[in-house]
Amino acid sequence: MADEENAYTFTTRATRHITLGNLPADGMHLWRGERLPEVTLAYESWGELNPAADNAIIIFTGLSPSAHAASSAEDPSPGWWEYMVGPGKAIDTERFFVVCANSLGGCYGSTGPGSLNPNTGEAYGADFPDVTVEDIASSGYYLMRELGVEKIHAAAGSSMGGMSAIAYAMQYPGAIKYLISISAATQALPLTIALRSLQREIIRSDPDWNNGHYSDAHRPLSGMSLARKLGLVSYRAADEWNSKFDRSRLPPEKLSGKRFEREFEIENYLEYNARKFIHSFDPNSYLYLSRAMDWFDIAEHGESISDGMSKIDVEKALVVGVTTDILFPARQQREIADAMRATGTDVDYIEIDSVNGHDAFLIDDEHFSPVVKNFLDGTVA
Amino acid sequence: MADEENAYTFTTRATRHITLGNLPADGMHLWRGERLPEVTLAYESWGELNPAADNAIIIFTGLSPSAHAASSAEDPSPGWWEYMVGPGKAIDTERFFVVCANSLGGCYGSTGPGSLNPNTGEAYGADFPDVTVEDIASSGYYLMRELGVEKIHAAAGSSMGGMSAIAYAMQYPGAIKYLISISAATQALPLTIALRSLQREIIRSDPDWNNGHYSDAHRPLSGMSLARKLGLVSYRAADEWNSKFDRSRLPPEKLSGKRFEREFEIENYLEYNARKFIHSFDPNSYLYLSRAMDWFDIAEHGESISDGMSKIDVEKALVVGVTTDILFPARQQREIADAMRATGTDVDYIEIDSVNGHDAFLIDDEHFSPVVKNFLDGTVA
Repeated sequence: MADEENAYTFTTRATRHITLGNLPADGMHLWRGERLPEVTLAYESWGELNPAADNAIIIFTGLSPSAHAASSAEDPSPGWWEYMVGPGKAIDTERFFVVCANSLGGCYGSTGPGSLNPNTGEAYGADFPDVTVEDIASSGYYLMRELGVEKIHAAAGSSMGGMSAIAYAMQYPGAIKYLISISAATQALPLTIALRSLQREIIRSDPDWNNGHYSDAHRPLSGMSLARKLGLVSYRAADEWNSKFDRSRLPPEKLSGKRFEREFEIENYLEYNARKFIHSFDPNSYLYLSRAMDWFDIAEHGESISDGMSKIDVEKALVVGVTTDILFPARQQREIADAMRATGTDVDYIEIDSVNGHDAFLIDDEHFSPVVKNFLDGTVA
Repeated sequence: MADEENAYTFTTRATRHITLGNLPADGMHLWRGERLPEVTLAYESWGELNPAADNAIIIFTGLSPSAHAASSAEDPSPGWWEYMVGPGKAIDTERFFVVCANSLGGCYGSTGPGSLNPNTGEAYGADFPDVTVEDIASSGYYLMRELGVEKIHAAAGSSMGGMSAIAYAMQYPGAIKYLISISAATQALPLTIALRSLQREIIRSDPDWNNGHYSDAHRPLSGMSLARKLGLVSYRAADEWNSKFDRSRLPPEKLSGKRFEREFEIENYLEYNARKFIHSFDPNSYLYLSRAMDWFDIAEHGESISDGMSKIDVEKALVVGVTTDILFPARQQREIADAMRATGTDVDYIEIDSVNGHDAFLIDDEHFSPVVKNFLDGTVA
């Protein structure tokens, strides 16, 4: 594979690629002022768009997932939200036409820093323009129109995906009927910015990052591994790890005997998960999407959070928080719900008592499926 | 300064150095089995030991402080616990003879990885033996006997210092009358181990760490800076930062204009504090003392935490927790208090509602001084 190509772009048999044809002639105008001459989105879909084109649901992802939210006949491998999306499941693909795109700026087939810059013929790297949550939402809007959907039934997302769904609703009032925001935020707060800024600085401090212009042979894997570990620490909750790992040590045959090397199972768990990740995610995409979350601030859509929220025009919203989330804490979910209600949106607010922290939506089928199913059932009563 | 010397060892006019003369002939036997042929401790003291030698208080420190807990005529610069220690203060130096030592393994004058190894004539570096909280406590015990104290009035400490005070009480039953443990732990739990392990791995990943044998000219400053930032994130609480920084941006003249560089005040705050730290702390000391906290487990002093705690023989203990501490959470302080009570120790447990997280004991004079003063007043009624 040539250096200037994105090492991470992959497609499954279920992945479609679409080059947005409905952008302005000079390309996509991004929220912070830069421009992308050409935008391709990788997406998957499940179910069928009905003749009235009013049964579409768009799912926005968190930082790292691909468009492969669920399995299908074309790609039977489990998706990242497998328990949630499928025939008869909470997001019921027998009833809805469900679309999930890889985020703009990502590395799983959508235009991102690993894509070729048409102006230079080389990968953008750190010359990729600033991408925001607003831009991810807009690219989803253009995608749905390409797919023949003027008004979507529901936009749903968790974490960065929840922010994207809210940004969609704010930027295109009336373009969605129902909104599902899980573990999102009205704006990034200092602790979260600090945790993400540190992850980015760790990657940028790896000499192999090379100011964002690394080759496939010299990717900043050490920095990515450390950043991913810090991410994992912030995604989970203390009590879960207490019960899962406690103070378990590695068996003697797994100890290197070197001072400061891994000795506790928790250290091994982080290492195992980081290794899985670093070979499948583009460091520059990590940097761009991570920064996008820092920038997100509903107050920038008006004079205040409340003013930004007042732009939303949906029939009803579902807002979900998790008691043990330290990254997007439950009080931020209550803030979303309260701000929506204060500006006239009908809101179901559910706080889930899960041990799984910020990652709960990826894991906790038992708590999340009934909440989402109940809400969506109510939208088609 | 020669490479093999410790760049960080400094003394103030108030600092004394004592080479422990009461160790076994072959040196100090450490808890994990290694041995230190010679141990020097740097300490400061305030007040006078009374003729009965029964008014001594030893203060154990957290990971990074020096022996300079408070100012004195010899060194009027403020100490790290200035509000707590002094004439008429909560730890009243008109009444008590107060001693604070730089931790064994530290870099402010006590024997540590930056010290010369008498066997080689060069700095230990990563050949320094494994040091534990138990060893820090033992070195304090030897120090107090050198100073003519058989039974100390009180052992006090916060964070790692609280663990050290507990370890002192467990290892030398009857050698202290009163115990003050602030924001400590019965044992390190997975989240805390993960956060510290990651800091250590960040330092070790800096090529300048050089397997623990760096020169003064090539210290792993980049790794230290990132590790310190992560430490700071874990020491403070979200709400404090929300009110202090919110989403404030740097003024335009402070922006580098480079992508991913610091843009929010919180990022600048971390950078400022990390820069202050990295030139004054030895990376190897950071690694050794950080690992010592992971290893600490009262259950290793018996069959269980309760069994370990049953070794404590003090007249009364003060246990203090902070509501917003995410690193040594309040429930761990309640666990200490409950385990002590269950094994017959009289305990005052106080939970302080401070916004300052784990660092509260360093900052929150208003809440901490009355609690400590009230407890110590009761010990000399």
